[in-house]
Amino acid sequence: MFNLYESNSSKVGLPPGSLVYVGPERTDQINISIIDYNKNTLQEKNSFDVKECFSDLKLNMKRWIHISGMHDESIIEAIGNHFNINHLILEDILNTNHRPKIEIHDNFIFVIMKFFYYDSEDSNKIIKEHLCIILGKNFIISFQEGTKDVFSLIKKRIKLKDSKIRKFGVDYLTYCIIDTIIDYYLNIADIVNDKIEDLEEDLINNSYENILNTIYELKREIIHIRRVVTPVRNIVNDLEKTDSLLISKSLSFYLRDLYDHTLQIVEQTEIFKELLTGLLDTYHSSLSNKMNEIMKVLTIISTLFIPLSFVTGLYGMNFHYIPELEWHYGYFFVLCIIIVAASSMILYFKKKKWL
Amino acid sequence: MFNLYESNSSKVGLPPGSLVYVGPERTDQINISIIDYNKNTLQEKNSFDVKECFSDLKLNMKRWIHISGMHDESIIEAIGNHFNINHLILEDILNTNHRPKIEIHDNFIFVIMKFFYYDSEDSNKIIKEHLCIILGKNFIISFQEGTKDVFSLIKKRIKLKDSKIRKFGVDYLTYCIIDTIIDYYLNIADIVNDKIEDLEEDLINNSYENILNTIYELKREIIHIRRVVTPVRNIVNDLEKTDSLLISKSLSFYLRDLYDHTLQIVEQTEIFKELLTGLLDTYHSSLSNKMNEIMKVLTIISTLFIPLSFVTGLYGMNFHYIPELEWHYGYFFVLCIIIVAASSMILYFKKKKWL
Amino acid sequence: MFNLYESNSSKVGLPPGSLVYVGPERTDQINISIIDYNKNTLQEKNSFDVKECFSDLKLNMKRWIHISGMHDESIIEAIGNHFNINHLILEDILNTNHRPKIEIHDNFIFVIMKFFYYDSEDSNKIIKEHLCIILGKNFIISFQEGTKDVFSLIKKRIKLKDSKIRKFGVDYLTYCIIDTIIDYYLNIADIVNDKIEDLEEDLINNSYENILNTIYELKREIIHIRRVVTPVRNIVNDLEKTDSLLISKSLSFYLRDLYDHTLQIVEQTEIFKELLTGLLDTYHSSLSNKMNEIMKVLTIISTLFIPLSFVTGLYGMNFHYIPELEWHYGYFFVLCIIIVAASSMILYFKKKKWL
Amino acid sequence: MFNLYESNSSKVGLPPGSLVYVGPERTDQINISIIDYNKNTLQEKNSFDVKECFSDLKLNMKRWIHISGMHDESIIEAIGNHFNINHLILEDILNTNHRPKIEIHDNFIFVIMKFFYYDSEDSNKIIKEHLCIILGKNFIISFQEGTKDVFSLIKKRIKLKDSKIRKFGVDYLTYCIIDTIIDYYLNIADIVNDKIEDLEEDLINNSYENILNTIYELKREIIHIRRVVTPVRNIVNDLEKTDSLLISKSLSFYLRDLYDHTLQIVEQTEIFKELLTGLLDTYHSSLSNKMNEIMKVLTIISTLFIPLSFVTGLYGMNFHYIPELEWHYGYFFVLCIIIVAASSMILYFKKKKWL
Amino acid sequence: MFNLYESNSSKVGLPPGSLVYVGPERTDQINISIIDYNKNTLQEKNSFDVKECFSDLKLNMKRWIHISGMHDESIIEAIGNHFNINHLILEDILNTNHRPKIEIHDNFIFVIMKFFYYDSEDSNKIIKEHLCIILGKNFIISFQEGTKDVFSLIKKRIKLKDSKIRKFGVDYLTYCIIDTIIDYYLNIADIVNDKIEDLEEDLINNSYENILNTIYELKREIIHIRRVVTPVRNIVNDLEKTDSLLISKSLSFYLRDLYDHTLQIVEQTEIFKELLTGLLDTYHSSLSNKMNEIMKVLTIISTLFIPLSFVTGLYGMNFHYIPELEWHYGYFFVLCIIIVAASSMILYFKKKKWL
Repeated sequence: MFNLYESNSSKVGLPPGSLVYVGPERTDQINISIIDYNKNTLQEKNSFDVKECFSDLKLNMKRWIHISGMHDESIIEAIGNHFNINHLILEDILNTNHRPKIEIHDNFIFVIMKFFYYDSEDSNKIIKEHLCIILGKNFIISFQEGTKDVFSLIKKRIKLKDSKIRKFGVDYLTYCIIDTIIDYYLNIADIVNDKIEDLEEDLINNSYENILNTIYELKREIIHIRRVVTPVRNIVNDLEKTDSLLISKSLSFYLRDLYDHTLQIVEQTEIFKELLTGLLDTYHSSLSNKMNEIMKVLTIISTLFIPLSFVTGLYGMNFHYIPELEWHYGYFFVLCIIIVAASSMILYFKKKKWL
Repeated sequence: MFNLYESNSSKVGLPPGSLVYVGPERTDQINISIIDYNKNTLQEKNSFDVKECFSDLKLNMKRWIHISGMHDESIIEAIGNHFNINHLILEDILNTNHRPKIEIHDNFIFVIMKFFYYDSEDSNKIIKEHLCIILGKNFIISFQEGTKDVFSLIKKRIKLKDSKIRKFGVDYLTYCIIDTIIDYYLNIADIVNDKIEDLEEDLINNSYENILNTIYELKREIIHIRRVVTPVRNIVNDLEKTDSLLISKSLSFYLRDLYDHTLQIVEQTEIFKELLTGLLDTYHSSLSNKMNEIMKVLTIISTLFIPLSFVTGLYGMNFHYIPELEWHYGYFFVLCIIIVAASSMILYFKKKKWL
Repeated sequence: MFNLYESNSSKVGLPPGSLVYVGPERTDQINISIIDYNKNTLQEKNSFDVKECFSDLKLNMKRWIHISGMHDESIIEAIGNHFNINHLILEDILNTNHRPKIEIHDNFIFVIMKFFYYDSEDSNKIIKEHLCIILGKNFIISFQEGTKDVFSLIKKRIKLKDSKIRKFGVDYLTYCIIDTIIDYYLNIADIVNDKIEDLEEDLINNSYENILNTIYELKREIIHIRRVVTPVRNIVNDLEKTDSLLISKSLSFYLRDLYDHTLQIVEQTEIFKELLTGLLDTYHSSLSNKMNEIMKVLTIISTLFIPLSFVTGLYGMNFHYIPELEWHYGYFFVLCIIIVAASSMILYFKKKKWL
Repeated sequence: MFNLYESNSSKVGLPPGSLVYVGPERTDQINISIIDYNKNTLQEKNSFDVKECFSDLKLNMKRWIHISGMHDESIIEAIGNHFNINHLILEDILNTNHRPKIEIHDNFIFVIMKFFYYDSEDSNKIIKEHLCIILGKNFIISFQEGTKDVFSLIKKRIKLKDSKIRKFGVDYLTYCIIDTIIDYYLNIADIVNDKIEDLEEDLINNSYENILNTIYELKREIIHIRRVVTPVRNIVNDLEKTDSLLISKSLSFYLRDLYDHTLQIVEQTEIFKELLTGLLDTYHSSLSNKMNEIMKVLTIISTLFIPLSFVTGLYGMNFHYIPELEWHYGYFFVLCIIIVAASSMILYFKKKKWL
Repeated sequence: MFNLYESNSSKVGLPPGSLVYVGPERTDQINISIIDYNKNTLQEKNSFDVKECFSDLKLNMKRWIHISGMHDESIIEAIGNHFNINHLILEDILNTNHRPKIEIHDNFIFVIMKFFYYDSEDSNKIIKEHLCIILGKNFIISFQEGTKDVFSLIKKRIKLKDSKIRKFGVDYLTYCIIDTIIDYYLNIADIVNDKIEDLEEDLINNSYENILNTIYELKREIIHIRRVVTPVRNIVNDLEKTDSLLISKSLSFYLRDLYDHTLQIVEQTEIFKELLTGLLDTYHSSLSNKMNEIMKVLTIISTLFIPLSFVTGLYGMNFHYIPELEWHYGYFFVLCIIIVAASSMILYFKKKKWL
C-alpha cells in the first residue's frame, strides 16, 4: 500500500537546525559525481570522498556536484560548511519528508522537489525520492535521496560538445534537471492512466475482484502526485518571475514551457479524479443492478409458487368431507387451475418487464 | 469511447525544443494554401511545396498561409526558420496535445486552440483538432492538424471584394478564424443538448438500456469541451486587453463580442452538468422505485399465502384425533376462515397504500 | 417543461454583425409607444410606424421610445441607423438568447436584461422575455421581446404631473424600468416559494405522486432565475460605479437600493436550493423508511409462520410409525407448542421494537 | 416550523421610497424611551409621543432614543423628517425583511441588524427581530421591531455614574448595543448546541421518533443564524475600518474584539453543520444496520426451515410405494436428518458471523 | 467524546473587559517560573507569589515569566496592571475558548495559541490547553491554562551556556515556544495516523465493532486540529512579515521554517480527511456487500426449495384419483425430477456467478 502520510516522530523535540536524516534506512555507499565543464572542456569525476568537491574551480568553468544518497549527515554538513549554507537549509535537505519549495537567497537558490518512478522489479510500487538543488553563481549541487542513476540522459547530453547545456550557464542545467523530473511525472501519469483503463475493462467484463481496493489505491496515488506537483508549479513560476541574477532572462522562455507542463499534469490529475469517481459510480450501480436482478428472481419464484403451494396444501387437508377430493377428475382440474394461474402470473411479470 | 487523456509518452526524455509530431499517424498530403490580398486585389495559391510561402509579398498586401496537416516536421521547421520563430514554439505547434494558450511577443502573437466537429460518417464520434495561429504585422500563418476544409466560409467571404476582411488588417482575419472555431463549439453544444434530450425521453419511456454508459460518455465530452473552451476565454480576453500594436483598437468591440460567446458556452456546459446530474438522480430513483415495487409484490404475496398455507398444513396433519376434521362442514368452515383472513389482509394493505 | 438550454443553431456560420431575430416565431404587430415629457408637459403617441420615433424632440424634453416586439429586423435596423448604433449591438438586441450585460459607451449605455412572468392562462408556465435598454442623453429606447404591456405602472406614474419620473432625467426612468423588472423577479420568487410549500405539505401527507418531477422542475427554474439575476447584480453595480455623465450622482442612492434587492433574490435562490435539497432528502428517507416497514412486515410474517408450517409438515408425514400421532391429545399438544412459539416470537419482535 | 423565506409580496409594484411596514401585524403600543446623558447627569423619559424626541438637547449632552415597535409608519416618518433622513432609509427601517447592512454617510451611520431570542413561553420557538441604528454626532436612534425590553442590561449600566458608557461618546453606546446583540447570538448558539447534544443522546438510545424532522429543523435554524451573522461580521469590520469622524479611533480596539466574537459564531455554525451531517450519517447508518439485521433474521429463518419443510413435504406425499415410510424408525431417522441439517446450517451462519 | 463546541454561556451579558476565567474548574496552585538570563548569567526562580515578577530587571538581562494555570483572575490582573496591558487583552487571556490570534502593538506582541497532548493516563483522551504569549522588548510572559510542565525541553536548552536561546533575544525564545507547540501538533498528527491505520486493519479483518463511532470521533479530532492549526499559520506568517522592532530580521529564516511546518500539518489533516472518507466508503461498501451476500443466500435457498416443495405438496393432495400415486416407481420418479430440477437450478446460479 502506498503510504500517504509521512511520520514526524523522528524530528519532534529536537532543537531547530539539527541535522538528522529521517528517510528509510539505507546501507549503500553515497556516490558523489563532479562534472566541471565549459563550452570547450569537460572533466568528470566519480568519488566516494566529499573532499573532491572542494577542489578549486578553474576560471570560466562551471561545476555540477551530484550527491546520490543523503543518509550520511556528515557529508551534507561538510558541503554545507564549505559552501557556507545555513543549517536550517541543511536540515531541510536531510528531511526527506519536506514538502517541495523554493527559497531565493542573494547568492544562491535552494529548491526542494520530489520525483517518482515505478520500481523496476515490482511495477505496482511507486518509489518516491527527495531531491534538493542548490544553484550558485557558477556551481550547482544536487542531492538525491537514493542512488539510482536518474539523470543519465542529462549526463549524456552534457558530454556532447555542441549541446545547449555546455553553451549556457548553470541555470540552464537547473532547468534541465527540473525538466527531467517533470518528465518522470508525465511517465507516472501515463502509467496511472493505463491502470485506470485496465479497471474500466475489468468493470465491463464484470470481474469485480478487488476493484474497490484498486480504485482507492489509485486515488491515493493521484492525491500524492497532485500534492507533489502543485508546489512544483509555484517553484517554476517563482523561478520565472524572480529578479535574481542567478537566472538569466533568456531562460524565462524555457521556464514558461515547463510551467505549461506542470499545468498539464495538474489538469490530468483532475481528469483522473473524475474518471475514478465515474468508475466508483459505475461499480456501485452495477452492484445494485445485480442486487435488483437477484431480488427479481426471488420475487418471481416466490410469487409463482407460494400461491400454488397453498392450493396443494388446501387439498392435502384431512377433512372427512371435502367434496372436490371425490370428483374423479378433481386432480386434473386442480392441475389446470395451477397451470392457468402460473401462466397468467408469468404474463403479468412479462408486462411489468420483470422477465 | 471518447479519450479524455492525452498520452505524454512520445515526448518524455527528449531535450526541450525537439520537433516531434505527436498526434495520430496520418498519410494524406499536407496542403498549403496561400492567399495574398488587400482592398483591391486577391491572389490565391494551393500548393504542396512549402517554398511557395517564402515568395516576396507586394507592398500593402497581406498574406494568409494556411497549412492543413502538421505531420511533416520538415515543413513546420522550414516555416519556422524563414519567419524566425523560436524552436520551443514550433515544438508547441507540433505537440497536438498542448493545451490552448496565447503568447504575445513583440513582433508576433502565437495562439494555440482546439476545435471539435462530429465525424460526418459516424455522428457519435467527435473529432478534435489542434490549431495554431501565428499573427505577424502583415501576415498570418495558421496550422491545422487535419486536412478537412474547415475555413471554407472565411475563404468565401475573403473573395468578396467589399467584405470587411478585405478592408481590415490581418488582426480582423484572426478574429474571424477564432469566431469560426467558437461557432464549431456552439454547434457541438447543440448536438450534446440533443443527446441529453434523447436521454430524457428514454428515461420517461422506461428504456434504461445502456443509459448509464451514455450519461458517463456525455459527462466526459462535457468535461472535455469545458477544458478546451475555458482557456479560449482567457485567450480572447488577453487579445482584447493587450497593448500589442498587432491588434488594432477598433477590434476590441468584436473581441468583447467573442468573449460573450465563450462565456455562453462555459455557462452551457455548466447547465449540461446539472442536467446530467439530474438525469442520473432520476435514473437511480426510478431504479429504486422499481425495486420497492418488486419488494411490495413479494411481501404482499408472501404475507397473504404463508399464513393461509399454515392453516392448510394444520389440517393436513395425520393425528388420529383432530376433532375439526370430523365435522361435516369443517372444510367449508376453514375455507371461510381463509377467505376472511385474506380479505382483511388485503384491506390492511389497501389502508397502508401498498395496493 | 422549462427549457434551460438556448439553441445556438440559427446563428452559427453567419458573419458577425448580421441582424437576425432568433426568438420564437411571432405574428403580432410590433407596437411602438413614444412618450415625450418634461416637468410640465407630456405627449404620448402609439404607432406602428417606426418613422414616428425620428421626429424632432423639443428643447428640454425627454423621450421614451418603447418597442414591444423585436421580430421585425427592419425596425431595429431603422432605429439603429437613425441613432447611430453599432451593428454588433443591434445583433445583441435581436439575439433573444443573449445573456444579460451592460455596455457603457461615451454617448449611450446599453443594457440587456430578461424578465419573467407566469402565463396568465397557465399558471405553471413561466414566460421569459428579452429586454434591451439604450439610454442616451435625453432619450431612452427600450426593446421588449413580446407585446404584453409590462410597464403599465410606470406609464401611470409618468402621467402624474408631480411624480419623480417627471422631475428627474431619463436615468431615473431607466432605474424605474430595472426596478420593475426586479419586482417581477420578486414575484416569481414568491410563486416558487408557494410551490415549495405545497411540496412540503404533499410530503407530509404522503402523496408522492409526481413529487420527484416537480422537484427537478423547480430546481431548473431556480437555476434559471439565478442565471438571469446574477448578471443583473453586476449591471446594477456597474451603473452605480460608472463615471458616465449619463447617470447623475443623485441616482446612486437608488441604485444601491436596487443592488440590495438583487442580492436578496440571489440569497433567496440559495435558500430555495437548500430547501429543495432538504425535500429530496426527506423524500428519499421516507421512501426507504417505507421500504423498511415493508421488509419488517415480510420478515415478521415469514419468521412467524415458516417455522410453524414446518411443525405441521412434520406431522403431515405419512410414516407408518410416528408415536405422537397416536397420542389422544397429540393435536392439542402441538397446537399448544405452536401458540407458545408464536407468542414468544411476537415478544421477541416487540423487544426488538419491530412491532 | 421556522420560516426561512421572507415574502416580498407586500412591496412589489410600489414606487421606491414608499413607507410600508411589512412585518407581522402587531397591536401593542409603540414605546419611546429617551435617555439624555453625559458624564455627570442623566435624564430618562418614557413616552408614547414621538414629539418628545424633538426637544432641544442641552450642551455636552448625548441622547439615546430607543423606539420599541415599528408598526406605525407615521412615527418613523416623523423622526425621519425631524432628523432629515432619506426616505429610502426609512423604507429599509420599516422593511423587517431587509438583510443586515451598514451605510456610512457623512453625518450619520445607518446599521441594520437582526437579533434572535427563544420565546420565553415556548422554548422551541425562535423569535427574530429587526433592529436599526442611526448613529449621529451626539445622538443615537435605535428602532426595534418588537416591544420586548432587550437592552435592559445596557440601561442599567448607563445609569451607573462611573460606567464607561457615560464617559465615552455615543459610538461606544453603539458598540454596546451591537455587543448585546452578538451576546444574543452566542446564547442561541448555546441552545442549538444543547439541542444537538440531545439528538446525539436520542440516537444512542435508539429513539428515532421524529429525529429526521428535528435535524432538518436545526439545519434551517443554523442556515438562518449564519445568514444573519455573516453580514454582521462585515458591519463590524466596516465600522472598524471607516474613516468617519463619528467613530473615534479608541473604539477600534473594542470593535476588533467584537469581530473576533462574530468570527467565533460563524465558526460555530460551521461546526454545527458538520455535527448535523455526522448525525444524519449516523442515523442513516443505524437505519441500514437495522435493515441488515432484519434481513439477516429473515434469511436465517427461511434458509433454516424452507429446506426442512421440503423434507417433511417429501414424506407427506401419498405415493402408494415409498419404502422409507414403512421403516419402523423412519420417522426418527428423518428427525435426525433434520436436526443434523439444522445444526450444520446454524454452524455455517455462526462461521459467517450472521449469528 | 471530544467536545468540539465551546460554550459561551459564562460570558454572555457581562460588560466588555470583565476578567472572568471560563475554563474547567481547577484547584491546583498556580505556579510562576521566572528566568532572568543573558549570554553569561542565568537566574531561575519558582514561586507562587506574583510579586516576584515585578522585581527590577538588571541591565542587559532578559526575563521569561511563565505562569502555569490561569484560574486565578487576580494574578492575571496584577500582571496586567504592572505591565500596563489593556483589560480586553487580559480578558482574552482568561477566555480559554478564544480562538488563536496575533495582535501586534507598538510596544508588545500578543499571541493566543492552543496546544494538544494525549493524556498520559488515558491515551484516548486529548487534552487541549490555552496558551498566551506577551512579547515585550526584553521580557516575555507566557500564560498556560494547565500546570503540566510542557516547556521542560526549552528550559533545559536555556540552561546550556552556549545555546542559541542565550545568545539571541526574547524573540528567539518566542520562536522556540511556538516551535515546541507545533511539535506537539506533529505528535498528535502521528497518533491520529496510527489510529487510522488501526481502523484500516480492523476493516480488513472484518471487525466492524464500533468502527463508525471511531471514524466520527477521529473526524471531530481532525476538524479540531485544523481549526487550531490554520490560524497558527497566519500567526507565524504575520510574525515573519511584521515591521515591528520586537522581531529581529534574522529571525525570519526560522519563522519561514515554522511556516513550512504548519503548512505540513494543515496538509496532513487534509490527507486524514480523505483517508477517513475512503474508510467510510469502504465500510459502507463492505456492509452492502455483506447485505448482497445475505440476499443471495436467501434467494438461492428459496428459489431452490420453494418449487420443490410445490411438487411434494402436489403429491400430498388427498384426491381419490391421482394416477401417478399408484405407479410403483412414482416416488422415485418424483425424486429424480426433484434432483434434476435442483441440479439445473444450481447450474443456472453458477452461470449467473451467484455461487
